[in-house]
Amino acid sequence: MAPWGERLAGVRGVLLDISGVLYDSGAGGGTAIAGSVEAVARLKGSRLKVRFCTNESQKSRAELVGQLRRLGFDISEGEVTAPAPAACQILKERGLRPYLLIHDGVRSEFDQIDTSNPNCVVIADAGESFSYQNMNNAFQVLMELENPVLMSLGKGRYYKETSGLMLDVGPYMKALEYACGIKAEVVGKPSPEFFKSALQAIGVEAHQAQ
Amino acid sequence: MAPWGERLAGVRGVLLDISGVLYDSGAGGGTAIAGSVEAVARLKGSRLKVRFCTNESQKSRAELVGQLRRLGFDISEGEVTAPAPAACQILKERGLRPYLLIHDGVRSEFDQIDTSNPNCVVIADAGESFSYQNMNNAFQVLMELENPVLMSLGKGRYYKETSGLMLDVGPYMKALEYACGIKAEVVGKPSPEFFKSALQAIGVEAHQAQ
Repeated sequence: MAPWGERLAGVRGVLLDISGVLYDSGAGGGTAIAGSVEAVARLKGSRLKVRFCTNESQKSRAELVGQLRRLGFDISEGEVTAPAPAACQILKERGLRPYLLIHDGVRSEFDQIDTSNPNCVVIADAGESFSYQNMNNAFQVLMELENPVLMSLGKGRYYKETSGLMLDVGPYMKALEYACGIKAEVVGKPSPEFFKSALQAIGVEAHQAQ
Repeated sequence: MAPWGERLAGVRGVLLDISGVLYDSGAGGGTAIAGSVEAVARLKGSRLKVRFCTNESQKSRAELVGQLRRLGFDISEGEVTAPAPAACQILKERGLRPYLLIHDGVRSEFDQIDTSNPNCVVIADAGESFSYQNMNNAFQVLMELENPVLMSLGKGRYYKETSGLMLDVGPYMKALEYACGIKAEVVGKPSPEFFKSALQAIGVEAHQAQ
C-alpha cells in the first residue's frame, strides 16, 4: 500500500461514517471508539473538508448529534448526511406522499412531509414497528398504486447490538419487493447518489475524497 | 383443446386444490364454491383416485377437514396432502429440531416434533405472529448454525381475504434468505416433491394424473 502522504495527494475532503466508526451504539448512549474524538478534532483542524455520512435511521439527526456531542465529538447537525433528510428532499421534488414504515425515533425528520392519501412507501429500520399489520398496510398501499414506489433507507441485512444480531431494513425491503414484484429505490449507502449528495455539501468531487 | 374423453384417456388420478377451488375461506368457515360439493362426490364415485392437495398452513388438517365437512364435502383427514405434515416427515427423517415461526392454528401438527435446542427454522403463513421479535428469533437461530436450514411451507406472495390482500409466507421467506444469505427449501406447492408425495399416497404416476 502506498504511504499516507502519497495516498492523500489530491484529497480535499473526507467522508466519515458514524456508527461503528466514531462510536458503538448501545445502552446509555453508547461509547466513543478509542481515538475517534481526537481524530475528528484533528481532521477538522486540518485543510480537509469533513462530512459525516451515516445510514442511521432509527433516530433524527438532532438526537444523533446530541448523543455524539455528549461523547465529546465536535459535530453539528448541518454536517451530517443521513437517509431520512435525503428521502424528504426526493419526496418533495417528486410530489410523493409516503406511507411511513419507520421507527418512531426518526419520525420528526418527516414533520414537513404530507402523508395523507399515500402514493408511495418509505421503509426504514423500524425495529419493533415491523409488525405484520404495518407490513401489510405498506403492502396494500403499494398494491393499489399504478406505479408503486418503494423507497428504502439503506438495505443493510443486520446489525449488532449488545443483545445480539438484529434484522435491519434490507430483509423487509426484500419482503415487499417480492410481495409486489417491484424493485425498491435505496436512499442511503451504498447508493452513489447518496455519497454524491454528501460530497456536494462540502463542495468536493468524488476523486478528491477519501 | 381436445375433448374431455380424449384428454382423460390414461388418467387414473386427480389432485384437487382446496382453498379457492372447493371453497372460499372467510368469516364463519367460508362458503363452498358452486358445484364443488357435487363435483367431489362424482369424482369419488368414479374409477378415478382422488387426493386433496393444499398449501393451507394456518390450520391443521383436522380443522380444515371439519370445516369442509360442515360445508357438505365428503372428505377425511387421510385424503389431504398439506405442507405441515410433509414438513414433519422431513424433519424426522433428517433429525432436525425446528424453531417454529408458524400460526398457532397449525401448531398441533408439530406436536410430535422435538423443538428443543433448534437446528433449523420452519416458517409458514404465520399472520400476526410475523412480529419483529419472532422474525429476529428465527434469524438468530439461523445465524448461529454452521449449516443453516430454512424450511418454508409454500412461497406464496399474498392471498385475498374479505378484508383485502394479505402477505403470505413468501415475503418473509425472502426476508430471512436475504438476511442470512441462504436459500430456503420450499415444502408445499409448487415443489415437485410435494406433488409427488400426494400422487404416491394414491398410487398414481405423474403422467396418469390430472
